[in-house]
Amino acid sequence: MDLKQFVTIVEDWPQPGIRFKDITTIMDNGEAYKYATDQIVEYAKQVNAEIIVGPEARGFIIGCPVAYALGIGFAPVRKEGKLPREVIRAEYGLEYGKDVLTMHKDAIKPGQRVLITDDLLATGGTIEATINLVEQLGGVVVGCAFLIELTYLDGRDKLVGYDVMTLMQY
Amino acid sequence: MDLKQFVTIVEDWPQPGIRFKDITTIMDNGEAYKYATDQIVEYAKQVNAEIIVGPEARGFIIGCPVAYALGIGFAPVRKEGKLPREVIRAEYGLEYGKDVLTMHKDAIKPGQRVLITDDLLATGGTIEATINLVEQLGGVVVGCAFLIELTYLDGRDKLVGYDVMTLMQY
Repeated sequence: MDLKQFVTIVEDWPQPGIRFKDITTIMDNGEAYKYATDQIVEYAKQVNAEIIVGPEARGFIIGCPVAYALGIGFAPVRKEGKLPREVIRAEYGLEYGKDVLTMHKDAIKPGQRVLITDDLLATGGTIEATINLVEQLGGVVVGCAFLIELTYLDGRDKLVGYDVMTLMQY
Repeated sequence: MDLKQFVTIVEDWPQPGIRFKDITTIMDNGEAYKYATDQIVEYAKQVNAEIIVGPEARGFIIGCPVAYALGIGFAPVRKEGKLPREVIRAEYGLEYGKDVLTMHKDAIKPGQRVLITDDLLATGGTIEATINLVEQLGGVVVGCAFLIELTYLDGRDKLVGYDVMTLMQY
């Protein structure tokens, strides 16, 4: 299946000059969503993932069905103030200023094999912060899976030493 | 399986006096997450759902694996400014002021049978706005499924005429 035919290119969003890759038209098509998820499920089996971790909110859309298909857990990474119990924090740089991602302190067991999922690998800032959180808890990042990679933003440069799989490249 | 044993009660969050029901401890346990999801999958089959709709972000966690299991689509409901293409809007009341939920204008086909999912049925405001969005697009709400129902908040009073299923009641 050529997944790119289900991606909608949105011109000038969220800013002029950006050609946004909208994946909601993959998700609302049952066959495309299942096909995309199954590719990541196969990858998760190859790397022997024991738990899936994804940043909100699109990382949930990708990772939750992968966890379900494998009968393993899903641990959410959320913005500050969203998780109700004791959290660990990781800052990441935005164009202007910084933002913070958090994870529950007990979300990952030390030594647990973690697959990180998100919709898009762009500059890699979000995923770098997510790896930082998993490793603070003693988790082992065995892979990072994305629907889409924007190769011209060189996000893989931030992920040297980690296994990365992407289903579509632009 | 007694799912309540996997719910963590967090005292005084997000405000003093609230006993928050944390479902992340269902999700990060593979067996509990699969069991909970499978109950909703069975319900989705009974009501012949053709697409799943859920509000961000916890509605994604519940609904996405249900869509995957059935090989049907998932359409996200998001806060204003998060969806990249033309949207429809629904306001809903908060304790102070109002908030807005949106959905892509092409997310649902007229006549499509929709199951709405979320983690929690509390006062019902979010789900009422979500139903409003689905119906603006001509979708038919065939059911609403939640992990948890706070019965003392009478959320079902806002959902008269709709089929509602909940896995746990407090």
